[in-house]
Amino acid sequence: MPVNLSAPVASELLPVAGVRIGVTEAGVRKANRKDLTVFLLDEGTSVAGVFTQNRFCAAPVQVSREHLAAGQGVRAMVINTGNANAGTGADGLARARATCEALAAQLGVAAVQILPFSTGVIMEPLPVERIAAGLPAAIADAQTAHWGRAAEGIMTTDTLPKAFSAQVRIGGAVVNITGISKGAGMIRPNMATMLGFLATDAAIAPELLQGLVRELAEGSFNRVTIDGDTSTNDSFVLMATHRAGNAPITALDSDDGRALKAALLGVAQKLAQAIVRDGEGATKFITVRVEGGKTSEECRQVAYAIAHSPLVKTAFYASDPNLGRILAAVGYAGITDLDQTGIDLYLDDVHVAVQGGRNPAYREEDGQRVMKQSEITVRVLLGRGDAQDTVWTCDFSHDYVTINADYRS
Amino acid sequence: MPVNLSAPVASELLPVAGVRIGVTEAGVRKANRKDLTVFLLDEGTSVAGVFTQNRFCAAPVQVSREHLAAGQGVRAMVINTGNANAGTGADGLARARATCEALAAQLGVAAVQILPFSTGVIMEPLPVERIAAGLPAAIADAQTAHWGRAAEGIMTTDTLPKAFSAQVRIGGAVVNITGISKGAGMIRPNMATMLGFLATDAAIAPELLQGLVRELAEGSFNRVTIDGDTSTNDSFVLMATHRAGNAPITALDSDDGRALKAALLGVAQKLAQAIVRDGEGATKFITVRVEGGKTSEECRQVAYAIAHSPLVKTAFYASDPNLGRILAAVGYAGITDLDQTGIDLYLDDVHVAVQGGRNPAYREEDGQRVMKQSEITVRVLLGRGDAQDTVWTCDFSHDYVTINADYRS
Repeated sequence: MPVNLSAPVASELLPVAGVRIGVTEAGVRKANRKDLTVFLLDEGTSVAGVFTQNRFCAAPVQVSREHLAAGQGVRAMVINTGNANAGTGADGLARARATCEALAAQLGVAAVQILPFSTGVIMEPLPVERIAAGLPAAIADAQTAHWGRAAEGIMTTDTLPKAFSAQVRIGGAVVNITGISKGAGMIRPNMATMLGFLATDAAIAPELLQGLVRELAEGSFNRVTIDGDTSTNDSFVLMATHRAGNAPITALDSDDGRALKAALLGVAQKLAQAIVRDGEGATKFITVRVEGGKTSEECRQVAYAIAHSPLVKTAFYASDPNLGRILAAVGYAGITDLDQTGIDLYLDDVHVAVQGGRNPAYREEDGQRVMKQSEITVRVLLGRGDAQDTVWTCDFSHDYVTINADYRS
Repeated sequence: MPVNLSAPVASELLPVAGVRIGVTEAGVRKANRKDLTVFLLDEGTSVAGVFTQNRFCAAPVQVSREHLAAGQGVRAMVINTGNANAGTGADGLARARATCEALAAQLGVAAVQILPFSTGVIMEPLPVERIAAGLPAAIADAQTAHWGRAAEGIMTTDTLPKAFSAQVRIGGAVVNITGISKGAGMIRPNMATMLGFLATDAAIAPELLQGLVRELAEGSFNRVTIDGDTSTNDSFVLMATHRAGNAPITALDSDDGRALKAALLGVAQKLAQAIVRDGEGATKFITVRVEGGKTSEECRQVAYAIAHSPLVKTAFYASDPNLGRILAAVGYAGITDLDQTGIDLYLDDVHVAVQGGRNPAYREEDGQRVMKQSEITVRVLLGRGDAQDTVWTCDFSHDYVTINADYRS
């Protein structure tokens, strides 16, 4: 059961002029599943992306990077589930390229103008024939109104599709923003999410897009973690179709640039948090905020140590205020000159530890009350500086083990 | 159910002349549990220890470090379970000192000659009165034959006591070695184990002991991991009573020094591996061996990434040869210039991946056969150098979640 997350209402998702989406059942791994999605982009759409830092990155990630770097424009994206095309060597690269060629031929564009994405089981050969056979149906299905279908089409062990929209008035026009994401497990994005696609019809100088997508990833997908595993396929793509009629944005630090960035970040954060809310087996959504560090990097390091600790995560699952486990994680986060007597710990409004020891005023029943909530904020004060950072995560339940012990069956 | 581990047979544990051990039920946290153990050491016994690198180290760890540094000799150790006396601030330090004073008064030695150890729940005040009240019974129980009782006395969520002995002929005499350990969860020792105590009656120059205990920890306790959590209380102590009658060892790189070190390391590795075999919820014992790295550090880094991945650990639990998860962990281990096309993967004798892709000769049924075993070796070849390293770990089961969700209740 996802934590305070419901399926998007298709009619509430805003179309983005210039982006049409089609979905079909190609039988990539199993029959009767929406497992193949195409994005068809009008000519002139600007596209930028960030990808996994995993050195074992998947073949489609390598090909998408190449095709973006070629700079010939992107006219379509093709996304399959059921097979990650990772750990597949030279043969996997050939299959990712063949997928692009098949779609390019159907659309009358160049293969280098296609970005491929795959998600699913690792180290199995991609069934490129079944994907190619499914492309005509996906293309025929393409409509601007199909964001909800796309959110379903990219799901793997997700229990709910994830899609959000926003509207913001910029430069004399109403700008639409819509995005989708998928996650579930193997999630500690290190630069981008599992799969995230975010589009806007705003007019913006194309050269701003790459910096913008990095900033958005840093503030959203790079702040969530489920199990500390960084996938081989993480990708986050930002599209701008320039069709909204706003006065074109030429700088991110202009008023219009900031307004667009804030609106995009709002949607990106919802998409990233939705991945945590629907994390494998998640029963709680936990915000880990670390303040008072010397640098935001060390704050993030401490936040991740807490967010990755199986002991902390199982204590949240049990609603057990066994909060010493949080202090232990702070202690092994890797800050070698950390002074434990400077550390305070809060659970929401409850002051649990003071100067490295139990707060004399802390009562177990107060900790228990907060631990029972489905949304909890852990706040650690390091007492050594002014920096801070935040990470979002979930708890660790029996269902996580069940899901991951059964994923391939 | 521990993996290929059985309880020690008390009569097979060798006494170490000069070390007497007593155990009692002090009611530290719950009644009717052997929860208080004392080691009484003859005058002249040399003692050295290594302790957790966790910055939130427990009060007894701080006091044991101080007392060892004082160099006035160690005449006794006191170990309680049920309460870790960690995250307890200045009050916790006072309670650890009070425990030493109580035992010192009973024995007629100085408090600085006592090392205290605690394990159990974090951030609760240590019930030092109940411990002090239990000391006379523990002292009265002290015998050289009580290693088996001590192994029971230091257990927390361990399902079996852990104790091993070895005998080796050195310098014209038979030398006895016996050790005990406890583990179960929150285990990724970063310098030492949870609690490990190893004694020998060998005569050895006292100044060699500190270097020796570090080397032993590096080759044993620092090579095991259960959940990646480094405890606040990890301690590993080596005692030498010099009573065996061997020609005293004056250098570790002498023949006798090497013989003693090898025998001690053998017992230390058994103690460390026993912690993994009895890891919380463990159903499999997994050796992760990484070869062909540029340095042993990077090999260890990759081995730990594999050993800590919840996705890898749940796949082992399920006996599912979802081996791409291992490649993914190799990829995010943090070697930034890793070339995936140089990597091979073996599961025992089965060659799974070659040059970063699936081995064409690999058959799923072969992977399945190995995954069903209770002892599995994962071998990763990085193909970039001659270094290697090994880490021991266990799988991740429903029972791990159950145990850690229920630990305090």
